[in-house]
Amino acid sequence: MAVALPVSLTDTIVALSTPPGSGAIALIRLSGPDAIRLTDEVFAGKRLRDQPSHTLHVGTVRDADRILDEVVVSLFRGPHSYTREDVVEISTHGSDYIVQEVLGLLLRRGARLAEAGEFTKRAFLHGAFDLAQAEAVADLIASDSALSHQVAMQQMRGGFSQELKDLRGRLVQFAALLELELDFGEEDVEFADRTGLVLLLQDVQQLVRRLLRSFELGNVIKNGVTTVIAGRPNAGKSTLLNALLNEERAIVSDVAGTTRDLIEDEVSLAGIRFRFVDTAGLRDTSDVVESIGVERTLKRVQQAALVIYLFDITTTSLSDLQAEIEALPLPSGVSVLAVGNKLDVASDAEQEAFLHRPDTVLIAASRGDGLDELQELLLAKVHGEGLDRAGSSTIVTNLRHAQSLEQATHYLDAVLSGLNTGAGTELLAADLRHALAALGQITGEISNDDLLTSIFTQFCIGK
Amino acid sequence: MAVALPVSLTDTIVALSTPPGSGAIALIRLSGPDAIRLTDEVFAGKRLRDQPSHTLHVGTVRDADRILDEVVVSLFRGPHSYTREDVVEISTHGSDYIVQEVLGLLLRRGARLAEAGEFTKRAFLHGAFDLAQAEAVADLIASDSALSHQVAMQQMRGGFSQELKDLRGRLVQFAALLELELDFGEEDVEFADRTGLVLLLQDVQQLVRRLLRSFELGNVIKNGVTTVIAGRPNAGKSTLLNALLNEERAIVSDVAGTTRDLIEDEVSLAGIRFRFVDTAGLRDTSDVVESIGVERTLKRVQQAALVIYLFDITTTSLSDLQAEIEALPLPSGVSVLAVGNKLDVASDAEQEAFLHRPDTVLIAASRGDGLDELQELLLAKVHGEGLDRAGSSTIVTNLRHAQSLEQATHYLDAVLSGLNTGAGTELLAADLRHALAALGQITGEISNDDLLTSIFTQFCIGK
Repeated sequence: MAVALPVSLTDTIVALSTPPGSGAIALIRLSGPDAIRLTDEVFAGKRLRDQPSHTLHVGTVRDADRILDEVVVSLFRGPHSYTREDVVEISTHGSDYIVQEVLGLLLRRGARLAEAGEFTKRAFLHGAFDLAQAEAVADLIASDSALSHQVAMQQMRGGFSQELKDLRGRLVQFAALLELELDFGEEDVEFADRTGLVLLLQDVQQLVRRLLRSFELGNVIKNGVTTVIAGRPNAGKSTLLNALLNEERAIVSDVAGTTRDLIEDEVSLAGIRFRFVDTAGLRDTSDVVESIGVERTLKRVQQAALVIYLFDITTTSLSDLQAEIEALPLPSGVSVLAVGNKLDVASDAEQEAFLHRPDTVLIAASRGDGLDELQELLLAKVHGEGLDRAGSSTIVTNLRHAQSLEQATHYLDAVLSGLNTGAGTELLAADLRHALAALGQITGEISNDDLLTSIFTQFCIGK
Repeated sequence: MAVALPVSLTDTIVALSTPPGSGAIALIRLSGPDAIRLTDEVFAGKRLRDQPSHTLHVGTVRDADRILDEVVVSLFRGPHSYTREDVVEISTHGSDYIVQEVLGLLLRRGARLAEAGEFTKRAFLHGAFDLAQAEAVADLIASDSALSHQVAMQQMRGGFSQELKDLRGRLVQFAALLELELDFGEEDVEFADRTGLVLLLQDVQQLVRRLLRSFELGNVIKNGVTTVIAGRPNAGKSTLLNALLNEERAIVSDVAGTTRDLIEDEVSLAGIRFRFVDTAGLRDTSDVVESIGVERTLKRVQQAALVIYLFDITTTSLSDLQAEIEALPLPSGVSVLAVGNKLDVASDAEQEAFLHRPDTVLIAASRGDGLDELQELLLAKVHGEGLDRAGSSTIVTNLRHAQSLEQATHYLDAVLSGLNTGAGTELLAADLRHALAALGQITGEISNDDLLTSIFTQFCIGK
């Protein structure tokens, strides 16, 4: 049922495949029927068309008489390549100028600049792997912790795809029997064992629901936990950010209102990525630039997964704190940790006021006191969301997959209730087809060009 | 006379050779006697030690049972490699996390993290190229305009080295004759033709001086022209920067004092790189953060090669302008272009006041009026410094080379005046030796470890 794809696989694409910027080496990758011929036209060295696959060749790239660079060329003949097409990788000196010149030369010779993810898209279209595996390539590149790496690697190597294939396989047989009944509809036969189908559906439904539940954790593993540090001016938010990141990221001064822009950075705690956002202090201000900062702070708080509300123990009462936290424009379900700063200069009485407040930690950000306790509390908040469920079992990290699983579970429910109420075979078969289609979308057995475009544009150029 | 080098070429070095950050591909490079064995230990695929040079191999990198990535390995056997040693390049997915894991694994197996430029240093020590060529590799990577690329490419391919070799060759023969005279010193013979030596020296001296003069231009080609945009608050400096860069680089607002940090960016005009620096407006201020900005502005003005002093035509008189420019803390020899902004709202009288001032342009930064004229004036200032001399002849871009040429010219002068005053052979021979050593330092025929260290630490890691 795969839709015919109006994509062109007949042209040759080119892109820079390494990150931009100065470095020792940059890699320019070509894929397509003319990859070898095009490179031969600009490469002074051995004739690549005469060389075997998986070989390396030293030479120069020339634009007429002008030498653009001394390069090493890697030759991969299709189908023994990433895209399954002829692929050439040109390893140049890592200068943006040289990369632009070489790319420009190849484009003038007839190559086309690759779209984001187009190499991987071609690999998928040529059957090198399925869609869930292709998506894992992007996840793998974006992975920045042991957990996100493990999940992406498992998915890229087909772990998740296999689980889905098993699920679909078990449903397909029953679907085929239902379709057969439809063909013989007049004769009112029942090829499919209704009781067996109920048991099977319940089983499949349980597995789909487990995968769906894993997405809550998968999302944290993949996207990290955006943690906004809010509070009144001069509470020490920038000092806390720097302490959590263990570097001098934000400018710290005694002047209230020093921070105007949102300053964000990430750190990995126990394999979970926390994205800390330092914000402008919340106060009414007539300073135009600062008030833009306050507005942005309030907006960012609404997107947070977790909020640290930092306050100065020596100037804030318990009731002040309660009122200030209640005034935050929080979406439902977001936890707020109250963090009292300046423990080092607070009196015993000032400290004791907050001792029994839940989700509260007292710290001295400038000295690092209490940071361990704060980090433990942060992790506990995430653990509460199910970190302990992360094992070797499949974890869904992709919103698109979660949505397809939602659809599948919806239609499986419909089939189950249809069976209970004695619905006709036609209705059952239709709902089961929908459930199968939803599962098939994940691996790309069912796909269309819009879906592929929306997936691969999230890739970086050159992959 | 080359000094014995206490560097170790017996260990195997490893580094990331592509720029850091997310991308499709990252390249990890190993070089040294154990490069192949070490990779074999972590690479699941074909046994690399059994494979021929210049071949590509697909497999996985594993840390015990854990798969770190699916990779492609490039195999270069010494001496047919960049460093002349065994070299392996591991092409991984472009994730910082994966790169760190693979590097960590190789380091635990016994590789050593390469120092900056260490691959190229090894290539030099193994005689792959001379020092001037090695330095051109770094220049090539840093090249960001057609001119800087052309100069670096010519130097990397040995153009400059050949010119120096010719110079040295012509001197060496005479030096040998002088040394011969010294050996026969008692007998008072003159093997070397004094008149011929004078003519030769004058000829060589002329060539060395031409190379030295080319450094003024070479420096501009290589390092660009730092152009500071100074002026009173709200003159429109950020608007001008954005217009020159053709992008919204700096935040623009009506509030005087919006820019606090120095904002810098580069653009290439006619092959010359201009680095424009937008600065905090110059005014006395009680704002702590803003006053730090003003201080930084004054400091940056002192480092400028060119200063654009931007003023508001509608609020500045010719005498104001003169006084403000005179008050700038300029080092000698730095040109100031006066640029009058807000041409679009200025009266005829306000415009005419500045019509006859030299080095002055009137613009409307917000509309882009007058920008072409300003760019022409900027280029004319650099052309005045000798851009028209840039042809296909060798241009010296490296401060170290210029210093060695200075030394050479000094000693050549000493030989010439010695010949005029009838100095003894011993003195002449000593000065000629010094001149030869100075020239030899450029290509590394004369070198020592300190020199090499100072050169190669300017490279990026992985090259």
